[in-house]
Amino acid sequence: MDNKNLIRKPTTGMKDILPYEMAIRDHVENTIRQTYALFGFEHIETPVVEHIENLTSNQGGENEKLIFKIMKRGEKLDIAGAESENDLADSGLRYDLTLPLARYYANNNPSLTVPFKALQTGNVFRADRPQKGRFRQFKQCDIDIIGDPSNLAEIELVNATTTLLAKLGFTGFTVRINDRRILKAMGLYAGFKEEELPEAFITLDKMDKIGVQGVREELISNGTSAEVADKYLQLFEDTGNDAEGIKKLCDTLGDLIDSKVADDLTEIITAINETGNGSFILSFEPTLVRGMGYYTGTIFEIEMEGFGGAVAGGGRYDGMIGRFMGQDVPACGFSIGFERIITILMDNGYKVPDSEGKTAFLIEKGVDAARLCDIMKQAADLRAEGETVLVSRMAKNKKFQKENLGKAGYDTFKEFYKDN
Amino acid sequence: MDNKNLIRKPTTGMKDILPYEMAIRDHVENTIRQTYALFGFEHIETPVVEHIENLTSNQGGENEKLIFKIMKRGEKLDIAGAESENDLADSGLRYDLTLPLARYYANNNPSLTVPFKALQTGNVFRADRPQKGRFRQFKQCDIDIIGDPSNLAEIELVNATTTLLAKLGFTGFTVRINDRRILKAMGLYAGFKEEELPEAFITLDKMDKIGVQGVREELISNGTSAEVADKYLQLFEDTGNDAEGIKKLCDTLGDLIDSKVADDLTEIITAINETGNGSFILSFEPTLVRGMGYYTGTIFEIEMEGFGGAVAGGGRYDGMIGRFMGQDVPACGFSIGFERIITILMDNGYKVPDSEGKTAFLIEKGVDAARLCDIMKQAADLRAEGETVLVSRMAKNKKFQKENLGKAGYDTFKEFYKDN
Repeated sequence: MDNKNLIRKPTTGMKDILPYEMAIRDHVENTIRQTYALFGFEHIETPVVEHIENLTSNQGGENEKLIFKIMKRGEKLDIAGAESENDLADSGLRYDLTLPLARYYANNNPSLTVPFKALQTGNVFRADRPQKGRFRQFKQCDIDIIGDPSNLAEIELVNATTTLLAKLGFTGFTVRINDRRILKAMGLYAGFKEEELPEAFITLDKMDKIGVQGVREELISNGTSAEVADKYLQLFEDTGNDAEGIKKLCDTLGDLIDSKVADDLTEIITAINETGNGSFILSFEPTLVRGMGYYTGTIFEIEMEGFGGAVAGGGRYDGMIGRFMGQDVPACGFSIGFERIITILMDNGYKVPDSEGKTAFLIEKGVDAARLCDIMKQAADLRAEGETVLVSRMAKNKKFQKENLGKAGYDTFKEFYKDN
Repeated sequence: MDNKNLIRKPTTGMKDILPYEMAIRDHVENTIRQTYALFGFEHIETPVVEHIENLTSNQGGENEKLIFKIMKRGEKLDIAGAESENDLADSGLRYDLTLPLARYYANNNPSLTVPFKALQTGNVFRADRPQKGRFRQFKQCDIDIIGDPSNLAEIELVNATTTLLAKLGFTGFTVRINDRRILKAMGLYAGFKEEELPEAFITLDKMDKIGVQGVREELISNGTSAEVADKYLQLFEDTGNDAEGIKKLCDTLGDLIDSKVADDLTEIITAINETGNGSFILSFEPTLVRGMGYYTGTIFEIEMEGFGGAVAGGGRYDGMIGRFMGQDVPACGFSIGFERIITILMDNGYKVPDSEGKTAFLIEKGVDAARLCDIMKQAADLRAEGETVLVSRMAKNKKFQKENLGKAGYDTFKEFYKDN
């Protein structure tokens, strides 16, 4: 054994979680599990490790560039004969929970309910450039409904998520909703060719950051004619953010859009507005893009005033499970930005309910065995009544010890001395 | 995109967790967290990825041969210039929770309470040969007390663990306790040289499997004289499994053992017996070895009749944190075999309390939007009262649908038709 000290810090971009943060995380995760259970979501888990073939199957967009690859195990790794990383790695850490869920469904569907309502809470891994608030291991919480082609799936996902956020004390947030098919029809209507759409959407997605003029300039600098760009942007300008807006837009789009898309979206918006608790705004948002390429229908996200960026996002991805099963299965999911919610709560000094009121027994060195047994019994009795009791040796510096324990929520101290 | 189907099965030796098992796992984990919280243990978390230098620092015994190594990230991996696996991997998946805890304590101790009582529940990874009931990703639940050199640490760890097992419905188990220093003194007393002890302990550890005669034969075939082997085995024969036995043994061992070891162990046994709820047996077990090389004092494990092998194990490891901090810090831990407990519960048809009594709303296709809003409101009202409500389209085969949902605990069905 060498005497050099080992490395104290976690690996690059990963973090240790201290008790104060962990208590908040546990409380939020428990609230998530309990709330989603009321909606019939069933908690499941997949391994954090997936086959490299699945992770690099073009389902993950940019995330596929950020995979942590795990070296092959075996008799002896043939490094000399290896020509690329993929000769040395046969698995990797998952970068999201959606791809593993699709694999899980394909693997286990005969044992699952129909439709299958899944809740996942688990760590995902992305070798992103480390930066403030962004980690290489972070938790995601996803709900998905698999096997329901109807818009009940969207309604349930949004209702469950808004109910959850309300339980965590959030109000005044905005649920933005759109449909990939509307997005496409609007582009075609304005005069884009189908193959030009992906690039146009990437530009459109920047509307929040660069504004209408910025989008117009970027479209044109990418080769779009001013005429097409203006017709496109005018269409957004003319479209209201409610059910009325959807109807008028779809009338304009005519044959470019199936009227069922407008009807479904209208029904979703109406049902969520009626059953929602009025603590949030629901808005049809034709500029909403959502980055992932696998979405096939409705897309949605939740924004909170003052916390730039979405705290939750999702949509319908009817094609992904087909990559595993050879036949498409309807699927729709909503992912909560767990780390973002924890950050918001911590920045606001959030306190977990019932985290105070703990008792510490401080025992002087030298208390005899019979007395010790008696003290341990007292502790056991209090614990049986649901009280937290820490049993500890009395420190030489008792004042410091009490202050230190006070920070962890201990506010009652009972002292036991050897002589009485 | 190619059309070849992706891989449905998890990677070798890892498993998907179905809702039925997950409900039991969640219930057990919640019980663990709640019970240990009553003893003042604070929940923490470390990343699943650790520096390769820490993972291969001779703290992990045989487990270090089973590390999943993660490939370096960076501009371009120099495969051609690599001479060994370690030129390509700078991190790996943790094989236990103890080494990461030692690193965590070294990294964060100024922010932690004194003593620090940690609870960890997390996945660990070992590239073991796949076999029934043994997985390459599995959950461990550890409690550790860091910074308490006194035997209160041992007492609290054992009390907390036995309380937990009782809450999970287990009775009649045996807590076996020993001390590495007694183990050593007995070996020296019998005539082993200090450097012969590790091999002798490996043989002794097989007592359960091969019996006294088997141990004797293996010792002798490893070069121990018959005289030493017989003196050694006679010492076990002569030693009782209670406090009286410890006292007599330590009298026999004389100067080979510090009398404080016997006093401490006696106090631990007395205190646990007195405060325990009588639902288990506590036994001094001089043949108990515990495999890991890092133990420095007391060691203990819990066995259950009929479930061969330990369901929990631990001990004192006062030296490990020193590898990170340059100075030793007293530490003592107890790890529960989470997967083993889940297996035992599932094999016995365990049912999570309150897992029945769920309601499913089945809605015929064609129910209009206004009616749908009304139905969603009914669901929201029931959920607000704490009732689980699944809202789903009515399937064509309603009988099958109800059977399918029945398996997931739905026993109340409410049907909504488009015409009434």
